[in-house]
Amino acid sequence: MDELTPIEWHGDHVRLLDQTRLPGEVLHLECDDPQDIADAICGMNIRGAPALGVAAAFAVALAAVKARRLDLDPALHRVRQAAELIRATRPTARNLFWALERMQTRAVAAADGDDLAEALTEEALAIQREDLESCRRIGDSGAALVPQGATILTHCNAGALATAGYGTALGVMRSAHRQGKQIKALVDETRPLLQGARLTAWELMQEGVPTTVITDSAAGWCMHKGMVNLVVVGADRIAANGDAANKIGTYAVAVLACQHGIPFYVAAPMSTVDLTLTNGEDIPIEERAAEEVSTIAGVRTTPQGAAVFNPAFDVTPHGLITAIITDRGICDHPFSQSLAALAQQLDTER
Amino acid sequence: MDELTPIEWHGDHVRLLDQTRLPGEVLHLECDDPQDIADAICGMNIRGAPALGVAAAFAVALAAVKARRLDLDPALHRVRQAAELIRATRPTARNLFWALERMQTRAVAAADGDDLAEALTEEALAIQREDLESCRRIGDSGAALVPQGATILTHCNAGALATAGYGTALGVMRSAHRQGKQIKALVDETRPLLQGARLTAWELMQEGVPTTVITDSAAGWCMHKGMVNLVVVGADRIAANGDAANKIGTYAVAVLACQHGIPFYVAAPMSTVDLTLTNGEDIPIEERAAEEVSTIAGVRTTPQGAAVFNPAFDVTPHGLITAIITDRGICDHPFSQSLAALAQQLDTER
Repeated sequence: MDELTPIEWHGDHVRLLDQTRLPGEVLHLECDDPQDIADAICGMNIRGAPALGVAAAFAVALAAVKARRLDLDPALHRVRQAAELIRATRPTARNLFWALERMQTRAVAAADGDDLAEALTEEALAIQREDLESCRRIGDSGAALVPQGATILTHCNAGALATAGYGTALGVMRSAHRQGKQIKALVDETRPLLQGARLTAWELMQEGVPTTVITDSAAGWCMHKGMVNLVVVGADRIAANGDAANKIGTYAVAVLACQHGIPFYVAAPMSTVDLTLTNGEDIPIEERAAEEVSTIAGVRTTPQGAAVFNPAFDVTPHGLITAIITDRGICDHPFSQSLAALAQQLDTER
Repeated sequence: MDELTPIEWHGDHVRLLDQTRLPGEVLHLECDDPQDIADAICGMNIRGAPALGVAAAFAVALAAVKARRLDLDPALHRVRQAAELIRATRPTARNLFWALERMQTRAVAAADGDDLAEALTEEALAIQREDLESCRRIGDSGAALVPQGATILTHCNAGALATAGYGTALGVMRSAHRQGKQIKALVDETRPLLQGARLTAWELMQEGVPTTVITDSAAGWCMHKGMVNLVVVGADRIAANGDAANKIGTYAVAVLACQHGIPFYVAAPMSTVDLTLTNGEDIPIEERAAEEVSTIAGVRTTPQGAAVFNPAFDVTPHGLITAIITDRGICDHPFSQSLAALAQQLDTER
């Protein structure tokens, strides 16, 4: 199969696969400036922490391209404005801020002589390329944890659509499948926005993995009935101790997996790890609009005036995580040590 | 407020509040014969174990009324046919079978001389009246377990709409609210059919209870954040050892409540208890159509051809249940003894 790419650089614009319309319609959005990308992030036309990192980088590069005829100082000003715009979109995904920091570093470095647009385009494309490579490494090393014939439960979408391609959690499933492990997938539909039913099921079916969709609340019962061999999910931000923010409902899945003795893996690149946070309590959790819960496909499901609490993410404490599958290898407990060691290795290489 | 009644006897027809249309539209269905009631049960226009008991009884009574001009034998044949029709609708709710057995006993007793239609109408109305009384007793005794100012989480709808009126789990909340306990409600939306978002929120808002709707997968996170003081749910069938079948997702809520040290109560009348089953493993679990999960409001959410697993219920093991609130009092562990004692008390009184 052709590899699925949620976001593409086209020199003077960025092309996004509109994830709000899948699987019913395969449509693309053309983003001509950073504001278009910011809108697409807020509207969840593009989502998933690593994909948001790429989108953030592309937004900054696009600002530089659009400022090509300006002098360096006003061009840098436009670049900073674009970064601010993206920074204000969604608070939880670490990769978005990580990519902005990396683009900023490159902008500063480029200031003495290089072509700013060229430098930032190069950096953004490197972020995209490296993320794709990271996903393949995550997939391949994670696949070693998957027994032959395993049924794997996942929540939300940590697939090609959530990354530069291939996926993190779905990367693990993809690699295991391609290695002939004859896995099956059990996919939480993932209310409110149904990324599991709409996106994960779509990706896995294209990959040829036998896929069954369940309601989120059926996951525990499926575990109880012995239908789940392991769980693998993505992450939006991982604190220094391994506490991992991911789509709302991940925490419940982790508690249930632990209760049933089922391994629970988090798959994410090191760009999702935020060593500035000691633990998950400080991870900012986005609350999204009530309408995501109170209406479905434009039809109101709650009584007029009913209050809604709609946190977009939750935090799974490290104690519930069996291992963290990164692009630099598999981290075991204690994560505070294993994550720090990998981060230091990365720093040394730079 | 006027009390909410999901099902009404009108002599030659039965009137149902169409629960598939709430809260958007308050419409009624007129059922002229047992087949109409069977269709309404299968289509979930009426649902909830105790309400299904009343509906089953009304269906049998309606058959007797329609057979009024027939001799006793053919009339009894029609009554048995109606019972068979209802028996084949949905397998899990104990009350449906319990009501059919009670109607059958009365039909047999009525066979020597009484007017069959009159006898069965009387019995059906007694089932309805007694269920309403049961709910009020459940509510009042359960309210004693509710601390002042408690936030109570519930799953699905075990309200007036699921019973002859007042509700079981919502009966507990209603009584606590009417006693001035200033409770708040956290309501799982309850996919796939959204009985929490659509029905429970609607009932509680009419009652004046401050109500917040969450996705099912947010319940665990809300517990983790200290937002839940106790859980109360209904039941569709309770085995002799206290294992309780209820709407899919209840099991996960129970595991999560246990994990967070939050009391988890099941509220149900004794007509939901099935002492013929030693434990919950033998409770028949209905699997419903894939379309309930794969389409929402007519819009397809899963890719064409995606498999779906859609169990309508799950079973919560007795060990996860703090207490069972019945119409004959609160049952503590061991439930095998406390439930048997109440059942024997009931038998003695008859």
